[in-house]
Amino acid sequence: MLHSGHVRIEIINTGTELLLGNTLNTHGAWFGRELFKLGLRISRQTTVPDGDAIRDSLAETLQRADAVIVTGGLGPTSDDLTREITAEVLGLDLITDEAALRSLENFFALRGKPMVDANLKQALCPVGADILPNPNGTAPGIYVPPQLNRKSNCAVFLLPGPPRELYPMYHQEVAPRLRALAGVEAAHEALVLKFTGIGESDFHDGIDAKLAAVPGLEHGYCAHIGELDLRLIGNRQALEKGREVTLDRFEPFLISDDESSLEKIIVSLLAKRRLKLATAESCTGGLIANRITDVPGSSEVFTHGFVTYANAAKSDLLGVSPSDIETQGAVSETVARQMAEGALRVSGADIAIGVTGIAGPSGGSDEKPVGTAWIAVALQNEGTESFKVFHPRNRKDFKLSVSQSALEAVRRKLKEL
Amino acid sequence: MLHSGHVRIEIINTGTELLLGNTLNTHGAWFGRELFKLGLRISRQTTVPDGDAIRDSLAETLQRADAVIVTGGLGPTSDDLTREITAEVLGLDLITDEAALRSLENFFALRGKPMVDANLKQALCPVGADILPNPNGTAPGIYVPPQLNRKSNCAVFLLPGPPRELYPMYHQEVAPRLRALAGVEAAHEALVLKFTGIGESDFHDGIDAKLAAVPGLEHGYCAHIGELDLRLIGNRQALEKGREVTLDRFEPFLISDDESSLEKIIVSLLAKRRLKLATAESCTGGLIANRITDVPGSSEVFTHGFVTYANAAKSDLLGVSPSDIETQGAVSETVARQMAEGALRVSGADIAIGVTGIAGPSGGSDEKPVGTAWIAVALQNEGTESFKVFHPRNRKDFKLSVSQSALEAVRRKLKEL
Repeated sequence: MLHSGHVRIEIINTGTELLLGNTLNTHGAWFGRELFKLGLRISRQTTVPDGDAIRDSLAETLQRADAVIVTGGLGPTSDDLTREITAEVLGLDLITDEAALRSLENFFALRGKPMVDANLKQALCPVGADILPNPNGTAPGIYVPPQLNRKSNCAVFLLPGPPRELYPMYHQEVAPRLRALAGVEAAHEALVLKFTGIGESDFHDGIDAKLAAVPGLEHGYCAHIGELDLRLIGNRQALEKGREVTLDRFEPFLISDDESSLEKIIVSLLAKRRLKLATAESCTGGLIANRITDVPGSSEVFTHGFVTYANAAKSDLLGVSPSDIETQGAVSETVARQMAEGALRVSGADIAIGVTGIAGPSGGSDEKPVGTAWIAVALQNEGTESFKVFHPRNRKDFKLSVSQSALEAVRRKLKEL
Repeated sequence: MLHSGHVRIEIINTGTELLLGNTLNTHGAWFGRELFKLGLRISRQTTVPDGDAIRDSLAETLQRADAVIVTGGLGPTSDDLTREITAEVLGLDLITDEAALRSLENFFALRGKPMVDANLKQALCPVGADILPNPNGTAPGIYVPPQLNRKSNCAVFLLPGPPRELYPMYHQEVAPRLRALAGVEAAHEALVLKFTGIGESDFHDGIDAKLAAVPGLEHGYCAHIGELDLRLIGNRQALEKGREVTLDRFEPFLISDDESSLEKIIVSLLAKRRLKLATAESCTGGLIANRITDVPGSSEVFTHGFVTYANAAKSDLLGVSPSDIETQGAVSETVARQMAEGALRVSGADIAIGVTGIAGPSGGSDEKPVGTAWIAVALQNEGTESFKVFHPRNRKDFKLSVSQSALEAVRRKLKEL
């Protein structure tokens, strides 16, 4: 039995389509999440083309890993060679497994289709290995336990590629064997803290050394636009200590500790407080409304969104003063405020966002360069707050950054109430 | 110079979050598609955790590959070790690159933020290697040409992980160098034809065999939600023949032949015809407006967007009859038509979209299950067309599918005018 903290598990995905970019490789992420639930981690994931390329990759992996999971290449066609190459690399003979052959015959009989000779090789199995039944397809999986492997101590799982076959087989056949191999007793857990308004270097200077000093805690960062995820891994005690060290310093910037998005947190804060939100967007062009409506249940808290891209739309729909647009410019504090207040008035919502800025690539000036935006948050009976941001990025990233700044302002406001 | 058909290119993606399954690894597929355009292929893709794990993987790859592209681990934090480990594995010293240091300082000055000491290591570069400028972030890339590599003949590219930094750097700095390394002097060109309204099996049944019969032509498909890309690769003559065979059959479904998005095509059709568009969205929640405003120059053709999520918003802002909502339901043909016509009237635009549907997960019925949507396109003086779609998918994919159906209807309408 291996110690779960030190089990090296590797994934090898075979499939030319994965390397040509025709198909996104979702197996890696899926296995990552599933193994994590067992307290296990993938130490390396490799993608190789169909056919012979798996040979070297598998031979190397056998020397490094305690268990390897190979997906794909168990089909009936000429480039499906995973079964044959694995047997060869392990130095094991292949024989027809009678039970596997019968269930192949059943599979076709059940569907009223003839079984062709090409399928016969799908019943082949290395002598002494376990056949893993596949109720959802023709390719059974194969498990070669460590004691059968003549080249190393690595356990080998061969699994079909299609998710509808792979996922059930993993749960039925693979997870219990991995659990036994690793002796897993939920040793590790993970915690993801999502932040906004601070960057990776703030963490580095602020708490990186403190986190590294927590016994048994691993940590890592993942930066997105307008967002930073801190990932903590360890036992419950180490996680608690890591969370404490982090929030001590950065709590005001915390979005969530359960991987919830900023928009999801806002929808649930609004629902809890029985408040309604309206949006008045110029430069973000509907992105803020779109993010809010990505959240199931948002129809309870979001009623009206205005995308007032033209100046006339700002005046006609939201009552923004044309002379203010004339004198201050459409990208100005007063216009952002009047947009938010207009949205509040017209919609009857409790809180409204107004956003106006210069997405570019053209339209900037020395005084108001591309990347500038004004954001206002208006509340019924509580007045309006406004601030300027500067996100000099490409158009889509600018929109995302501004939407993030605006939503973060709403989140803070809702927390205060 | 290597022969392009035999260049072994490997990708190493670093990132614990990729192996934990928090983040889907989209780099592999993206590189696959980009390299394919140069007539190159990935021979192996490997994902390793942040930190020290890259050492073995890189050392092995150097013995196998002609070029290796490493992504991630160039940030300022303690688990960003790609730069340091690569220099060590290659046996090269790291020194501060003065130009890189200056552009780091500029990056922070421009944003009015102080640069912290942690960022200093981002200006480090192996002696003699090329710094690859990063206008979109703090981490410059690094290129170690084969002649500098003391361990093998492999060229090494170190690139930042975030797509907004990685993609421009690839196009500016990496593709030209790979082209030179591989000697792909326009031997191959690629053509991407984007289609909507038909699927991969239509192509299989329709023209797959004909495309395969064109001498010197390779082809492949890439399916997205509501869109199918056909990728043709070959010399100019083969591409022309491939295009002819394809459009002969599927021209009405063609969005673009230059990788332009559907929304970009619509903005340019509107601009050419000097027409203005307005949107009235319920179930898509601002996504259609957001897609249109992703296109530079859209402010010339898009003025008003309405996100009428609540029934009251549909009536108050767009004049939809409350009694029709009552009797026909908010998701009905008449409501979609009244939304589009209301948007046209209020905005003074020339063409307007109205969309209403059931995104789910709740709110469906036997008669109108989750996934149902009504779409209407209204034109000044030309009347309104409407149709129903059914996209039973998760919430975000439903929104995307419905927006695609609506935009495709607008494109066809604009083509007719």
